[in-house]
Amino acid sequence: MQKKEDFNEWYNGIVEKANLSDKRYPVKGMNVWTPYGWRIMRMIDTYIREELDGTGHDEVCFPLLIPETEFKKEKDHIKGFDSEVFWVTHAGENELDVRLVVRPTSETAMYPMFSLWIRSHQDLPLKVYQIVNAFRYETKQTRAFIRVREIHFFESHTCHDSEEDAQRQIEEDVAILSRIARRLCLPYILSVRTDWDRFPGAHYTVGIDTVMPNGRTLQIGSIHHYRTNFSEPYGISFEDSDGQRRFVHQTTYGMSERLLGAVIGVHADDKGLVMPPDIASFQAVIIPIFSKNNAEEVMAACAALRDELAAEGIRVKLDDRDARPGSKYYDWEIKGVPLRLELGGRDIENGVVTFVRRDTGEKGTIDIASAAQGTGLVLEMIAESMLEAAASIQGSYITDIEDMDSVVKERILRFGWCGDPACGHAFEERSDMKILGHRYGQAEAYEGRCIICGKPTGKRVLAANAM
Amino acid sequence: MQKKEDFNEWYNGIVEKANLSDKRYPVKGMNVWTPYGWRIMRMIDTYIREELDGTGHDEVCFPLLIPETEFKKEKDHIKGFDSEVFWVTHAGENELDVRLVVRPTSETAMYPMFSLWIRSHQDLPLKVYQIVNAFRYETKQTRAFIRVREIHFFESHTCHDSEEDAQRQIEEDVAILSRIARRLCLPYILSVRTDWDRFPGAHYTVGIDTVMPNGRTLQIGSIHHYRTNFSEPYGISFEDSDGQRRFVHQTTYGMSERLLGAVIGVHADDKGLVMPPDIASFQAVIIPIFSKNNAEEVMAACAALRDELAAEGIRVKLDDRDARPGSKYYDWEIKGVPLRLELGGRDIENGVVTFVRRDTGEKGTIDIASAAQGTGLVLEMIAESMLEAAASIQGSYITDIEDMDSVVKERILRFGWCGDPACGHAFEERSDMKILGHRYGQAEAYEGRCIICGKPTGKRVLAANAM
Repeated sequence: MQKKEDFNEWYNGIVEKANLSDKRYPVKGMNVWTPYGWRIMRMIDTYIREELDGTGHDEVCFPLLIPETEFKKEKDHIKGFDSEVFWVTHAGENELDVRLVVRPTSETAMYPMFSLWIRSHQDLPLKVYQIVNAFRYETKQTRAFIRVREIHFFESHTCHDSEEDAQRQIEEDVAILSRIARRLCLPYILSVRTDWDRFPGAHYTVGIDTVMPNGRTLQIGSIHHYRTNFSEPYGISFEDSDGQRRFVHQTTYGMSERLLGAVIGVHADDKGLVMPPDIASFQAVIIPIFSKNNAEEVMAACAALRDELAAEGIRVKLDDRDARPGSKYYDWEIKGVPLRLELGGRDIENGVVTFVRRDTGEKGTIDIASAAQGTGLVLEMIAESMLEAAASIQGSYITDIEDMDSVVKERILRFGWCGDPACGHAFEERSDMKILGHRYGQAEAYEGRCIICGKPTGKRVLAANAM
Repeated sequence: MQKKEDFNEWYNGIVEKANLSDKRYPVKGMNVWTPYGWRIMRMIDTYIREELDGTGHDEVCFPLLIPETEFKKEKDHIKGFDSEVFWVTHAGENELDVRLVVRPTSETAMYPMFSLWIRSHQDLPLKVYQIVNAFRYETKQTRAFIRVREIHFFESHTCHDSEEDAQRQIEEDVAILSRIARRLCLPYILSVRTDWDRFPGAHYTVGIDTVMPNGRTLQIGSIHHYRTNFSEPYGISFEDSDGQRRFVHQTTYGMSERLLGAVIGVHADDKGLVMPPDIASFQAVIIPIFSKNNAEEVMAACAALRDELAAEGIRVKLDDRDARPGSKYYDWEIKGVPLRLELGGRDIENGVVTFVRRDTGEKGTIDIASAAQGTGLVLEMIAESMLEAAASIQGSYITDIEDMDSVVKERILRFGWCGDPACGHAFEERSDMKILGHRYGQAEAYEGRCIICGKPTGKRVLAANAM
């Protein structure tokens, strides 16, 4: 099971070996979150809550089921989702008068309520989010955390008194992303999707993509500016300070369990998971190394070390199972614990703890007198180099091309595009790749030619094969 | 809107006034959790997680949708739920081959997986829980938190190698309950349900009831011993240490958002909510009392007080809105903040903070020099007297009767029953009440007669009208 040889097989193997999720549940694409996987996902959720609460969003929880009548109010939206929603048609023995959609996303659940909640400009901005599961009838091959039919995600929804204020929200979303991605040691690319690839009902969509080690992109989330596309059909309006009724401008932002899929794909290796320290269930595991003679002394030192690290807020586990160190190493490597601390008689004599980094395999020692501080520093170093290594791999995938003959698969191609949809479609058809769009928020002085029609253009886009 | 006059109307009014949930969502019985209500519910969830994690349960998350084939494996279970489940019959344009049930509870989702997870006695006990929403097609009149169609709840599921070990689990569940109920300042009654009232598929059921101020009981949760009733049809067996294959003994335990409904019903009053300090979003609110002359000084003292309390972990809010103190009092009374702290010029001179308890209206002062400690003490006193007051009201509803002529409605009746189902049914029909069952875990030396047939019996039961 090698990452370089067969990424897909390797990925599935890692999920199973580390016991992150169980795909044997009898509905395809609906997997069971096992204790280990769920603990990691909940840790990610905790950071998301922290960020959204800290930027003035209120957490809510809207119903799962949406009446067909509400669901169909925005025409593009329903066209985009019609073929991939689950329908509740019966309750008990009765056929329902109005069929219910199982939430694929919550615009159509929330917006009828927003129209009741918002009356005046003093109610704005309205910023809410929820962390729930969404449901999409995925017909492609399913894959744990990456393509599933029950999707754990957060969705934030905001309403503003102007297009500009909604735009400021998108800047805030981008800043939130940068902080969350740093915790996950994930590099990413932001691009403004083409007109034919934006979210159904959106004015524009910013896609958030990570490059997986097989050279394909994985979209881990998106941010949308809706302008008044939803507020008009749903009647979400406010009385402005000048006494005029206006429709609100809306944005949404969402990221899913694909964040975890990306962490696995980007960081895990042939031995198992490699967890970023911030979301590791255990950041460090202590392995006692003892013989019959010094067992008691070593175990006492290990327990003291554990207590000291725990007191400093480090998530630490003392593995005191009756097993050989080698088999413990093996287990914790699969689980991806970032730092292994070995403590034996000689270490105690020398006043040190031996550490082994999961990401690089590098060995070293930490002064036992300042063990918590030392462990914290090594964990920071691990996080930093995990992000750097991933960013450098991502960068190496970006390939500039100037003509269609240079198209290579499993790369992120960068080239000029005149912006004409006809040329865009031609590129996608001939390359069998997807245009991600132009980089969001990065003004670049580009002077080149459209890869299809050859017209001069200042616009450069990225294209890739998606996972 | 008076609690004593019309409990139901009062209850609905409080939920709306305090903005805990919005029932205007266009599916009956599926309410929107507003930020305020959801924050309280999540705080309750936090304590539940703390208790379950602390007793060795692992949190998991199972899929929402259950194939009809799995759902129908245990005969009593499906009979109990057949008429009240939502059915997913279509996905996109396609009719599904196997219909899917929207989880009403997760036995039938989990148990097929348990049969894969459990191999030997070393895998036992298995103790997992999840905090999710469940769905029941309630046909009676719905009511926020009390009778809804989308129910927020926790469910723990355990597997054991013997009936006795499963019984020990139930004792643990009861201990967990006592700690959670104490945080919510909720008294409760545990009773072993009659054979015709136990959970579909259970060997026996312990109902957890709270008495509401209208003399009716609200079931806030239940604990079940399944013996091998589910493990046999689902094939959940293990190889025992003697090499024999045996079926596991199972238990479940669940409590729902009714916990919040009970808190409202038991503690709120005609002015609004009264929140138990442990689950109050804000435990204390600081109201500055100032004139033009001393505004700056008072605001500075208030901010210092807020910082001091927050540093000690007290959830505190400084209400610095530009509004009169009276209107602030009114707002926070509706929200049920347990403690109001008023700080004005005279208080500062006297080196005190004036406090007003939400539960009793009692006024007093706290030394500003030890404000955090003093506030903590008053909050503890509030919690204690809220629980005591509620327990004393609950106790006052219990009425001993010896014959059917003494039956009174809106009381908890206590009387002898021979245990014969015929007598039990006769009591329920003639009284139009429900037998809750005999008290769980309380051995009592009772010598009396069956209220129906007059035979001597050592068994005493409770009966009530349910909400």
